[in-house]
Amino acid sequence: MAFGVHSEVGRLRKVMVHRPGLEHTRLTPSNAEELLFDDVLWVDRAKSEHDAFCAVMRERGVEVYEAERLLAEALAEPDAKDWVCRHILNEREVGVGASARAREWVDEAEPALVADFLIGGITKADVARDLGLVWQSSTSTTMLLPPLPNFIFQRDPSCWIYDGVTLNPMTKPARKPETMIVETIYRFHPMFSSEKFPIWLGGADEDWGRSHVEGGDVQPIGNGAVMIGMGERTTPQAVLWIARSLFRSGSAGVVLAVLLPKSRSYMHLDTVITMCDRDLVTAYPPVVSGARIWTIRPGDAPDDLVVEEAHGSLPQLMATALGIGEMRVIETGGDAFGAEREQWDDGNNVVALEPGVVVAYERNTSTNAALREAGIEVLTIEGFELGRGRGGGHCMTCPVQRDPAV
Amino acid sequence: MAFGVHSEVGRLRKVMVHRPGLEHTRLTPSNAEELLFDDVLWVDRAKSEHDAFCAVMRERGVEVYEAERLLAEALAEPDAKDWVCRHILNEREVGVGASARAREWVDEAEPALVADFLIGGITKADVARDLGLVWQSSTSTTMLLPPLPNFIFQRDPSCWIYDGVTLNPMTKPARKPETMIVETIYRFHPMFSSEKFPIWLGGADEDWGRSHVEGGDVQPIGNGAVMIGMGERTTPQAVLWIARSLFRSGSAGVVLAVLLPKSRSYMHLDTVITMCDRDLVTAYPPVVSGARIWTIRPGDAPDDLVVEEAHGSLPQLMATALGIGEMRVIETGGDAFGAEREQWDDGNNVVALEPGVVVAYERNTSTNAALREAGIEVLTIEGFELGRGRGGGHCMTCPVQRDPAV
Amino acid sequence: MAFGVHSEVGRLRKVMVHRPGLEHTRLTPSNAEELLFDDVLWVDRAKSEHDAFCAVMRERGVEVYEAERLLAEALAEPDAKDWVCRHILNEREVGVGASARAREWVDEAEPALVADFLIGGITKADVARDLGLVWQSSTSTTMLLPPLPNFIFQRDPSCWIYDGVTLNPMTKPARKPETMIVETIYRFHPMFSSEKFPIWLGGADEDWGRSHVEGGDVQPIGNGAVMIGMGERTTPQAVLWIARSLFRSGSAGVVLAVLLPKSRSYMHLDTVITMCDRDLVTAYPPVVSGARIWTIRPGDAPDDLVVEEAHGSLPQLMATALGIGEMRVIETGGDAFGAEREQWDDGNNVVALEPGVVVAYERNTSTNAALREAGIEVLTIEGFELGRGRGGGHCMTCPVQRDPAV
Amino acid sequence: MAFGVHSEVGRLRKVMVHRPGLEHTRLTPSNAEELLFDDVLWVDRAKSEHDAFCAVMRERGVEVYEAERLLAEALAEPDAKDWVCRHILNEREVGVGASARAREWVDEAEPALVADFLIGGITKADVARDLGLVWQSSTSTTMLLPPLPNFIFQRDPSCWIYDGVTLNPMTKPARKPETMIVETIYRFHPMFSSEKFPIWLGGADEDWGRSHVEGGDVQPIGNGAVMIGMGERTTPQAVLWIARSLFRSGSAGVVLAVLLPKSRSYMHLDTVITMCDRDLVTAYPPVVSGARIWTIRPGDAPDDLVVEEAHGSLPQLMATALGIGEMRVIETGGDAFGAEREQWDDGNNVVALEPGVVVAYERNTSTNAALREAGIEVLTIEGFELGRGRGGGHCMTCPVQRDPAV
Repeated sequence: MAFGVHSEVGRLRKVMVHRPGLEHTRLTPSNAEELLFDDVLWVDRAKSEHDAFCAVMRERGVEVYEAERLLAEALAEPDAKDWVCRHILNEREVGVGASARAREWVDEAEPALVADFLIGGITKADVARDLGLVWQSSTSTTMLLPPLPNFIFQRDPSCWIYDGVTLNPMTKPARKPETMIVETIYRFHPMFSSEKFPIWLGGADEDWGRSHVEGGDVQPIGNGAVMIGMGERTTPQAVLWIARSLFRSGSAGVVLAVLLPKSRSYMHLDTVITMCDRDLVTAYPPVVSGARIWTIRPGDAPDDLVVEEAHGSLPQLMATALGIGEMRVIETGGDAFGAEREQWDDGNNVVALEPGVVVAYERNTSTNAALREAGIEVLTIEGFELGRGRGGGHCMTCPVQRDPAV
Repeated sequence: MAFGVHSEVGRLRKVMVHRPGLEHTRLTPSNAEELLFDDVLWVDRAKSEHDAFCAVMRERGVEVYEAERLLAEALAEPDAKDWVCRHILNEREVGVGASARAREWVDEAEPALVADFLIGGITKADVARDLGLVWQSSTSTTMLLPPLPNFIFQRDPSCWIYDGVTLNPMTKPARKPETMIVETIYRFHPMFSSEKFPIWLGGADEDWGRSHVEGGDVQPIGNGAVMIGMGERTTPQAVLWIARSLFRSGSAGVVLAVLLPKSRSYMHLDTVITMCDRDLVTAYPPVVSGARIWTIRPGDAPDDLVVEEAHGSLPQLMATALGIGEMRVIETGGDAFGAEREQWDDGNNVVALEPGVVVAYERNTSTNAALREAGIEVLTIEGFELGRGRGGGHCMTCPVQRDPAV
Repeated sequence: MAFGVHSEVGRLRKVMVHRPGLEHTRLTPSNAEELLFDDVLWVDRAKSEHDAFCAVMRERGVEVYEAERLLAEALAEPDAKDWVCRHILNEREVGVGASARAREWVDEAEPALVADFLIGGITKADVARDLGLVWQSSTSTTMLLPPLPNFIFQRDPSCWIYDGVTLNPMTKPARKPETMIVETIYRFHPMFSSEKFPIWLGGADEDWGRSHVEGGDVQPIGNGAVMIGMGERTTPQAVLWIARSLFRSGSAGVVLAVLLPKSRSYMHLDTVITMCDRDLVTAYPPVVSGARIWTIRPGDAPDDLVVEEAHGSLPQLMATALGIGEMRVIETGGDAFGAEREQWDDGNNVVALEPGVVVAYERNTSTNAALREAGIEVLTIEGFELGRGRGGGHCMTCPVQRDPAV
Repeated sequence: MAFGVHSEVGRLRKVMVHRPGLEHTRLTPSNAEELLFDDVLWVDRAKSEHDAFCAVMRERGVEVYEAERLLAEALAEPDAKDWVCRHILNEREVGVGASARAREWVDEAEPALVADFLIGGITKADVARDLGLVWQSSTSTTMLLPPLPNFIFQRDPSCWIYDGVTLNPMTKPARKPETMIVETIYRFHPMFSSEKFPIWLGGADEDWGRSHVEGGDVQPIGNGAVMIGMGERTTPQAVLWIARSLFRSGSAGVVLAVLLPKSRSYMHLDTVITMCDRDLVTAYPPVVSGARIWTIRPGDAPDDLVVEEAHGSLPQLMATALGIGEMRVIETGGDAFGAEREQWDDGNNVVALEPGVVVAYERNTSTNAALREAGIEVLTIEGFELGRGRGGGHCMTCPVQRDPAV
């Protein structure tokens, strides 16, 4: 199969990303908090930084797909237009009257333009004519369709776990539409629609209740093991559902469920620990050490799940799950202040391109130095603007094909 | 028909309320904000205050139904149990494993007990045995099923507009389950299931997108007119949908859509203006005067909506819609500090039992004095505890049968 | 000497309080947070509740002094007027021009009126004529002189420790003027100015830097011991200064310094632990157990302080300091939710009138029941309104004369 | 005289700045809000950006003084050491015991090291030995002496207005010590102590009450006129005091007092308007247009101030005060979103080096383009890290000598 993610550090072959764009030009000090950003960012510069990041990956042989381009290509399909109009631009979302006008626009406009606005949001000024009450009662900076600035964190709306994928029902209302965008891609882009692969959880046609998960919490570390953080963004309900789906198909044999404190700093598991090599992680000790962890394994009866609280640290449990002797841990660099600062600046949020080779923000000089000391090849990228949304290389990538780590 | 609300001040015949209970014992300083409460409240005392409120209404001939009792009665129906298990206690909401156990419990337990916990929420301690990961990863004060303390504001989850009702898709995640509770009642309680009435908007089996509405924003003022606030809790999308439904059936002829500032203080339209008599409102001028207002009327073609920005103040537009000469306005009492204080304490949030007779919190002495001066009979109730959730008599009542005001 | 506080539970002979007043009518939802209140309160009712509280104390023989009356009486002295004009109504505080007008007013007006406005604050409407830029650039709800609603918590601005007093430099700018009010009283009211007593720390003529202390953190438990909380409101700098002053005069022999988490819920030590009898405290275990504690004792050299981290729980250390065998602990009542709720509602914030007799809010029924079970006589008062500022009987009282507990 | 600032756009001859340093390495996500920063910054990079900024100024002939170096040089004086120990490292600030140790350290250590720590703050780890209670009760990231990260905004702690200076009593406790640092420099550095110049307001030996002012609100625009913003950081009390001081010495003849909304975005007047040429400002219209403005002029009697509300826009009033025909206004560039973004990123916060030549952040491309279009020479600097504290070239500079603009 052309897709599948079989480890966190095996050779990365194909990855989906999203280049910063229109949606970030709509970020202002007034709406940033609601849109889950800490600051506005200089968009042209963020684009260059993102291009440089992609170039680093391409130089190492990774095929990089831009989600906005995949969406535009998917929208060439009339069925895709229908699906989008029924799910994103329907009367309940954009209003009676405005919905009919939106339908016309989707039919007439260039798919690339439609893709841009679906991700970038639609303002009053974007619309050529009076669309009725929703339009009239808006101000120049309220949004008729909300922008999706967090879409640059492609890690979150969907995630490949071995040979299947989850379409993640996200916790924050501001991020929910992102999943519909990636669902459009998976359903209608020929690259995906020509393949068969299981959906472990998610999909816009069902109400997923409190089963929330974001890809930043999910790490298919290899050897049939998956590590999933539970905290601000991912619930145990979703972890159980994913575990059951994986065990049913035999795609995985154990899930490590890791309880995180609810905090903006430790939003996702990959903000505090990521793998750099087969036996090496970078981790932020104040959160990782002492975390409560459960193992979930298939029981004897079909669909039975055996949940047990695990003893030992997360790196130890990872080593056991991977069947390796020991997991080396490189801690966030610096003194107590410095480590807190580099964790915040995504020092632990690196993405591996192959065993022992990771991409990291250059700004985390202490952590990067420690990784190099340990033999890791650290490819640095600038993150002056990219980092303002709280997310590093791991957050910005959705691997769709990655080899096992062996 | 036994139900229908044909004005804001005609004789109130039947009303649905909810007595404070288990859910309020779960309010703490730590979770109050998430549960949309400003403070914790003394539950036993809140119950007495609520009982006294109901007694005032009963003395004036109103039939008062307690939602928790209606729910318990509805749950006598096996279909109701099924519906609740499929919508509220399913695997996605409470987790694989826990859901099956919940199903057994709903089948075995007393309906009144089930009703209590559906509204009051379920804690770790409430559950006799280990339910798996969700249960194990909880602390003593996290909730397996969230409590619904805002359910005392029966005005919001559903609202009768003339001869039909809306099942309101609410904005805040903390309140969404309330609507499923009232949907259970309307679907399965014999009092309602034996009648036929239209649903203008809402229902748990569909995704209502950004069409949010809460009953506190909706006032069927009579003469085929409905006044709906748009602000923190209600969107223009929902207003348009409701207007179209009403016009289709001919139940109303005009909707006044009132734009409110987004603010905790002016959460709903009924926090700044309510009717006390056929030609008298109590209102908070800093918000009501100067509000932008649109009229929505049926167009010539089927389902066509004609939206026009209106000129004139809200009271003037109400008078026109009601076909009366003038609407008298009694402003929130006190100086600039006092008026802000009494608006906050629900001084403008009164509920009429018949023309010229309203129930108000005793604490708003200036506003109440002004109303009496204007000839209104003001029946006062204590609100030391009830008021801590920001809501007065109007917020706490869901009229299900009310006469026209003529 | 007519003043002096020699224990926390010995017979209370004289106490200073402040009746709610003008300052609370200025509390609004807009300014409450800045003024450190969680909610507005119904002032007339708060007055009745406070009167009832004072009546309970008077019935038990306590002489109750109202601070606003003491201030008015002090202001009969021309020197007091001078002091107030130089410290509170000077050009730097109220503005060039306005200050001269304020001076005239203080000279002409009734002292009781001046006292009212010094505590209640001054609005634009209160001032008969244009006072220049400060006045013109104000709105109807900004304050020319800020109100002091926290002044009802008389415990905080000053505190008697054995035979002397502290004039507390408070942390929050909103509370700083309160200390100047009580300093006016102690300096100029004949009841105090006729006596000689040491000031352990504080006074408006010096800059106290980061030496902050509030009386809610200070408990002179008897036997020469003082217990002082360090947290959001009190710094170790102040604790050391007080200890040195006490040791110099021989008024105390040991200070127990207790480190509290910085949290609105545990603002002061007396929100989590107060004494009810010679050997009994009511305490909130999640904060009190496990707190880090240091003992401070005089060293051999003059002014030398010996600081040692103590081992054992706070009640054990109190027992040792008091020379009693054991300190019984009555925990906040209820389950995990209930205890958190009653702690928040000042369940642990009781004030003793004599050994074994305390005043408590009636709303904390579980904690009160537990205290009665343990043999304590609990005199309950209503706190529907009083409690909205987060403070109970202990917070609202400044004992100025209390017997040793033996 | 070697010092004096006679306009906003005349040739800048001498300027005081502060290079980012130790204090910024102490900024963390946990303490940033308390320290008034929106984010942490990469300190090494911020230093390079700052160096580049200074290089741009030096290339244009400006003498750039680094405040930290001036402080170190001042600390060569024993009197300076005394003053610092008495005002910043006294017992009330750092604690009994610790203060004596600090005194020894100031006497022994290199002045440059002392200067570094006075600005950078002191942590537990910085101190070689147990200093008693303050030290023991600290954690590894609490500060024994707080860091002053806002000190890079040299505009604020003091400001030259014509031939004298103000030592600004700042509003936020986190910034108060900055003024003591600059007072040390002005008092003891030979460059300043050898000159005589008036202090219009301020000084650590007096309590300035509610007379708060920050230099970002003060612009001596020339021709005897001064423009002062009143808002979150500057009070009318301070404006009046400064006006009286200026009028007494005849150094100025009119003050324009501009009322700003209280908002983080419009913290200081120079965040919404700065001068670029004799007759050109860059301004953010949503705040500047419609602002209420008063003129303050000397009256007939000594010390009499005549305050009148002015009619006309701020640029018009500036033109009148400067005696020029018209003030051209270049608005913040971009659409409604863009202008809000560039205002936030200090697009209007430029510093002129001479008439028509300004330094601006490169990121505000639309505003910079509009300025260039209007004939302004815009020298751009990078502000990826510098900008994270919300402040541009104007905020980061304290001109100490600037020519009139004629």
